[in-house]
Amino acid sequence: MANKLDEFRSYRTKMNDRIGQIDHLGIKRFFNLDGSAYKDGPLDGKTKELLGLVASTVLRCNDCIDYHLIQCVDAGWKDEELFDALNVALIVGGSIVVPHLRHAVETVDTLRAEGKKK
Amino acid sequence: MANKLDEFRSYRTKMNDRIGQIDHLGIKRFFNLDGSAYKDGPLDGKTKELLGLVASTVLRCNDCIDYHLIQCVDAGWKDEELFDALNVALIVGGSIVVPHLRHAVETVDTLRAEGKKK
Amino acid sequence: MANKLDEFRSYRTKMNDRIGQIDHLGIKRFFNLDGSAYKDGPLDGKTKELLGLVASTVLRCNDCIDYHLIQCVDAGWKDEELFDALNVALIVGGSIVVPHLRHAVETVDTLRAEGKKK
Amino acid sequence: MANKLDEFRSYRTKMNDRIGQIDHLGIKRFFNLDGSAYKDGPLDGKTKELLGLVASTVLRCNDCIDYHLIQCVDAGWKDEELFDALNVALIVGGSIVVPHLRHAVETVDTLRAEGKKK
Amino acid sequence: MANKLDEFRSYRTKMNDRIGQIDHLGIKRFFNLDGSAYKDGPLDGKTKELLGLVASTVLRCNDCIDYHLIQCVDAGWKDEELFDALNVALIVGGSIVVPHLRHAVETVDTLRAEGKKK
Amino acid sequence: MANKLDEFRSYRTKMNDRIGQIDHLGIKRFFNLDGSAYKDGPLDGKTKELLGLVASTVLRCNDCIDYHLIQCVDAGWKDEELFDALNVALIVGGSIVVPHLRHAVETVDTLRAEGKKK
Repeated sequence: MANKLDEFRSYRTKMNDRIGQIDHLGIKRFFNLDGSAYKDGPLDGKTKELLGLVASTVLRCNDCIDYHLIQCVDAGWKDEELFDALNVALIVGGSIVVPHLRHAVETVDTLRAEGKKK
Repeated sequence: MANKLDEFRSYRTKMNDRIGQIDHLGIKRFFNLDGSAYKDGPLDGKTKELLGLVASTVLRCNDCIDYHLIQCVDAGWKDEELFDALNVALIVGGSIVVPHLRHAVETVDTLRAEGKKK
Repeated sequence: MANKLDEFRSYRTKMNDRIGQIDHLGIKRFFNLDGSAYKDGPLDGKTKELLGLVASTVLRCNDCIDYHLIQCVDAGWKDEELFDALNVALIVGGSIVVPHLRHAVETVDTLRAEGKKK
Repeated sequence: MANKLDEFRSYRTKMNDRIGQIDHLGIKRFFNLDGSAYKDGPLDGKTKELLGLVASTVLRCNDCIDYHLIQCVDAGWKDEELFDALNVALIVGGSIVVPHLRHAVETVDTLRAEGKKK
Repeated sequence: MANKLDEFRSYRTKMNDRIGQIDHLGIKRFFNLDGSAYKDGPLDGKTKELLGLVASTVLRCNDCIDYHLIQCVDAGWKDEELFDALNVALIVGGSIVVPHLRHAVETVDTLRAEGKKK
Repeated sequence: MANKLDEFRSYRTKMNDRIGQIDHLGIKRFFNLDGSAYKDGPLDGKTKELLGLVASTVLRCNDCIDYHLIQCVDAGWKDEELFDALNVALIVGGSIVVPHLRHAVETVDTLRAEGKKK
């Protein structure tokens, strides 16, 4: 059965394809630059995905949290490390972040459940 | 000669002392919790200071950027690593972050100049 | 029939329980501190719930608005008082707050309808 | 079949009517002032709707984006002009704006499909 | 000697006068509406000034904090009540609010010192 | 005598040069992309500078407001058109935008005074 995370993934793919069709050079370059920002560099990609997760959490964007959590789990971050990063986001951003913490924890649980099925 | 960073440091110390005098239990506990969030845990303190820096940058708070840069330099992060983290903040937060990137780079330079004097 | 507010309430309870299981000391303490902030103190709890409502509205978080509206209605605030507080949030936060004003008014109406059923 | 945009339109109408019933003078005046801000003046209304769209996008409010896109399409802005404006919002607001760019493009497509049916 | 608060007051007066000269009907009406929002209504003005203070603090605007603190002290709020309200802002808004808490406490102290001179 | 705007201009130039020296490919590309976003395209550059001004104002960044006002005046926008755009920002962003409206009007006046000297 499709869960909320699958819905996000298919909507994201569909709309990113549509945005590609628009063929606006600035938007295309921004998307490339966004992808490159999380590649290995002076900091490794794994660390930068965690930075992206915390930035997304304090800015309170559930879709961005989901995207970076998918990448973070892929990169090998463990649950307790993710929750420790989310605690930093919580203390910086305050209780207004709590609904996004709930969302993030649900997404981590969904990702782990998917991992067990494989 | 006192630089902008020294002004921040002395104002921060003076006002944190004054806030301590207020003796509000909630505020005191929040300050303690804030300090604890960056101690070694599932993630080491060094990594969490970098998370704090990126969170402060996307939320566009110069004082918070300065505080976390002081901690990051203390923790041993190198310039190119700090700039790579700030690049993540820039791509997540957009051009509205640029004035804070300028401020952050100036603070890194001040901190390195202080380090050479010691 | 379950309404949107009931969905929020059951999701909130489920995920807060799950977050409790994570057993992260910082997160636990933050949740306690958050709860304490609205207890009677120099300001009474009733007034502080209204402060929480306005803070949630200008920061544009529907879940936070719902939570504080539940508490505000419980604490005895009347509709016209709640709307007068929301007007302050509207003038401070601007038209970007309007969708959250719609949400808040819908939640107030749901809460009053629930009150009549009891 | 009702699409997401129709849901927004009917919810918006229903709740704006309900807010009118509340009869709070400040809220009523704010709604009038909000409407007036986009009328022809030193700048024409068409330009101001585009300003409203970009402001809504960088502040990341999907309902506000939908409202201003409806007005922008009505005012005669073409797709490539709307996407060029959204590119400004993307560069100013960063990747945190991307989920709202997806939403905006979907809404533009829905509006154009509605236009063809007429 | 002119303190920071006096500078804010004279700059605010000077620029509000200049904005009045611009004679833009929308801006003028907004300023009137803003003033009216804090007058006695279903909630008394004293309570609404406290709401304005907390809204300004979580949105992290020092000038707005100063303006509402001047009004709050005028309205008769005591220090411990103001600090209890600021604690709500701190828990809602997180550590990113701390620099503005420092500013707010400094302004309260300046206002009390002015009160003693009279 | 150096005014606030001149200070911004020289600080901006100095730090942008310094950021160029850092030679981070991602940051460099972002700066280029940022510059390109305001060039003539489906929308002309003049209109896009006005979009940048309104985006900067609702996001409450004085340096960004100053930068876009310089460009807007250069592009030929008249005072009453700029104030009409700022009125849109004010209604969207609320009274929290007022201190930035004051700053913007001061900058417009400085720019016009500079224009008369030439």
